[in-house]
Amino acid sequence: MDEELGLNEDDFNIPPVKYEYLDHTADVQLHAWGDTLKEAFEQCGMAMFAYMTEMDYVQIKEVHTIEANADDLMGLLYHFLDELLFLFSVEPFLICKKLVITEFNTQEFRIVCKCFGEEFQIGRHPQGTEVKAITYSAMQIIDVPKDNKYEVFVIIDI
Amino acid sequence: MDEELGLNEDDFNIPPVKYEYLDHTADVQLHAWGDTLKEAFEQCGMAMFAYMTEMDYVQIKEVHTIEANADDLMGLLYHFLDELLFLFSVEPFLICKKLVITEFNTQEFRIVCKCFGEEFQIGRHPQGTEVKAITYSAMQIIDVPKDNKYEVFVIIDI
Repeated sequence: MDEELGLNEDDFNIPPVKYEYLDHTADVQLHAWGDTLKEAFEQCGMAMFAYMTEMDYVQIKEVHTIEANADDLMGLLYHFLDELLFLFSVEPFLICKKLVITEFNTQEFRIVCKCFGEEFQIGRHPQGTEVKAITYSAMQIIDVPKDNKYEVFVIIDI
Repeated sequence: MDEELGLNEDDFNIPPVKYEYLDHTADVQLHAWGDTLKEAFEQCGMAMFAYMTEMDYVQIKEVHTIEANADDLMGLLYHFLDELLFLFSVEPFLICKKLVITEFNTQEFRIVCKCFGEEFQIGRHPQGTEVKAITYSAMQIIDVPKDNKYEVFVIIDI
């Protein structure tokens, strides 16, 4: 018995582990802005990619074009991000360094976007957080600009 | 213009960053079990501490005693974990290596527990995930044992 610490020999025996961790769920809110709504959308897409890896390690080596269509503006933002996520999740596994929306139609809710980047490669690119899904949860699109700033807020599941 | 890649010089210009990340929220479910409900509670407490750091780095250097009281069994589990979290969050900043419940009263819903461990020190102990709060969300206590196994499920905010 260690009188000073109040510990005896048996106190140092460690029981076996009988626990585990389940159902880790998480989300993060992306907040992006720009001088135009188009720029805010581009920045929001980049916010998502920058969450997946460190941008410093990503180079522009190829360009791909995506299209998104929807029935309203929030749907457009959702599908735009979802298309980007799809571009990353399957062939060409593109991690983007830059997004340039070449068609931004807020009447017919249609986006065409050039996506500049390279194939994601574990080892070359630090693995950030996996983005599991885009959500409509608490989505905000500020298209009447405050201080000449257009803004979007999107929560993504990670 | 690089014809092969379809990229021109301007495509390599990177826009400024106009985004940020807000409101990162997350939780994880602890699942612990034991030959007795008392053991399942002890294991659940250890599951929480093991989430905060790597147990291999923690030594038993001191012992502290906590008490938890409640009006029902779920309340007892909640307050037990909350007392342990408190032990970590303020003086003595104890990270536990072993928990021994010395009084486990499921009639009057009272726990007394000896907490063996040492002061958490950044640098010596790898920083795991901060536990922000215990929750009652989807809490389950299986006190009618299946296959002689008592189980508890607790979701903690991280």
